Amino acid sequence: MTKQHLTSPVVLSSPTEVYNAVQAARRQGQRVGLVLTMGALHKGHLSLVAASRRSCDVTFATIFVNPTQFGPGEDFEKYPRNLSEDLTAFAEAGVDFVFTPSRDELYPEGFSTFVDPPTVALPFEGQHRPQHFSGVATIVLKLFNILPAHVSFFGQKDYQQCIVLRRMAKDFNLPIEIEMCPIIREEDGLAMSSRNRYLSPLERTQALALSRGLREAENSFRSGETNTLKLVERIRTCLADVQIEQIDYVAVVDAQTLENVPVVERPAVALIAARIGTTRLIDNTILRPH
Amino acid sequence: MTKQHLTSPVVLSSPTEVYNAVQAARRQGQRVGLVLTMGALHKGHLSLVAASRRSCDVTFATIFVNPTQFGPGEDFEKYPRNLSEDLTAFAEAGVDFVFTPSRDELYPEGFSTFVDPPTVALPFEGQHRPQHFSGVATIVLKLFNILPAHVSFFGQKDYQQCIVLRRMAKDFNLPIEIEMCPIIREEDGLAMSSRNRYLSPLERTQALALSRGLREAENSFRSGETNTLKLVERIRTCLADVQIEQIDYVAVVDAQTLENVPVVERPAVALIAARIGTTRLIDNTILRPH
Repeated sequence: MTKQHLTSPVVLSSPTEVYNAVQAARRQGQRVGLVLTMGALHKGHLSLVAASRRSCDVTFATIFVNPTQFGPGEDFEKYPRNLSEDLTAFAEAGVDFVFTPSRDELYPEGFSTFVDPPTVALPFEGQHRPQHFSGVATIVLKLFNILPAHVSFFGQKDYQQCIVLRRMAKDFNLPIEIEMCPIIREEDGLAMSSRNRYLSPLERTQALALSRGLREAENSFRSGETNTLKLVERIRTCLADVQIEQIDYVAVVDAQTLENVPVVERPAVALIAARIGTTRLIDNTILRPH
Repeated sequence: MTKQHLTSPVVLSSPTEVYNAVQAARRQGQRVGLVLTMGALHKGHLSLVAASRRSCDVTFATIFVNPTQFGPGEDFEKYPRNLSEDLTAFAEAGVDFVFTPSRDELYPEGFSTFVDPPTVALPFEGQHRPQHFSGVATIVLKLFNILPAHVSFFGQKDYQQCIVLRRMAKDFNLPIEIEMCPIIREEDGLAMSSRNRYLSPLERTQALALSRGLREAENSFRSGETNTLKLVERIRTCLADVQIEQIDYVAVVDAQTLENVPVVERPAVALIAARIGTTRLIDNTILRPH
């Protein structure tokens, strides 16, 4: 990666200080972009920074491994944390401010108000990770209040999350745009994820079946197959071919409501969640009729 | 009431328009005050407007009978609505902008994100009106986003509501102050409430036992009684004296946590909810040790 930006970002851990920095930028008429992360940065995150830099005057990023979105037995404790590498990556990507709050700052004693997320949070991830979207929506709402940006950039990799957050933003009248940015993939197709580093070399090869399945579904769809059961079967065959058996879901559903549809007549999304060994991966692709 | 203000407030029903009006005021360096109401205005509401005018440069008020905070069988349908009287009262009180949204605007089809309120919402009103605080917290959060004021004024009459909203504001990092203003009472002691108009003349007399009970508890407390059970008994005796039997709760609890305390050592609040005929009334008073 070439160094595009020579000055390091300002790193702030106080909510008041970062709020004031956002407001100061706004008062100067700057358009403020926001990229929320849990660190362990990869090119997917940095593409969000690039999107922000293209459309905004100043880019704020956050690094916070949010405990409330991890369920019991999930990987909160082992989630990769390397602040200095992440700060270097953000500096090279041209982030202006990085907010690195502590857990106690965001969840002080007595904290007990949560977002009860919209119905679109119920299936898929919501079914397999019961408190996940409540935790996600709560931390995102908090960070939107601490960093009142004009626009916030999220990756399509977490497709359902984007839909949940857009619905929350609409329902709560949040004065912020939510922009969904394309999935960034490795050359061989694997969607970038902080959790890819958990994979053994063999699992890494198996994991390619997710993106391969989605590509085959896309090809089928472009060749005229609109029956969602057939498209799902196509993906499941790819997973079965490499003995991926711990499948949380494979679905082709309405892209807005995430509801089942028999045929793809409006934009749909193909969604996969599966476990390769002990690593849970998700991936998706949007199918748009002409 | 003397007319202190000759120009009528600007009445807006579009969230975008009122948001822009608040932001325009903020950009001019004005301190913005907010008074949220369900209309059916009385002197309690107007005291909130007066408080806003004392500390702010511009005062926005809202009128919206929020369906999500009424339970099944409660008085949503019969809740008093008289927009033109309310606008006159706000004009006389010196409100600058009134926001009068429609139900469909605030709760469009597909609306499904709610606030899961803090634990302090569980007892008292939360127990007797199960979805009430979720509805209150949700509409207040929405209105804070639509009208991003510096400070919002709420009446102590709804004491638990103030505590719930302050906790939500802290937990969600909302950039707004919540100021609790004193209870306004009729000359004979009855706390002002839009629901007082439901009372028959006989019930109106009975209802005085609530404020009388609180006054007697205050007098006891000032005379040295700090045992909370004794203070509660004092209030219950006043209610029993006038045959008020439908009592939802009488309690003397910690003023911040609303948890039971055996003796008043820190600020406490005496809370009452009771039904007089079919009308449910609440009242409270704060007991502060020297």
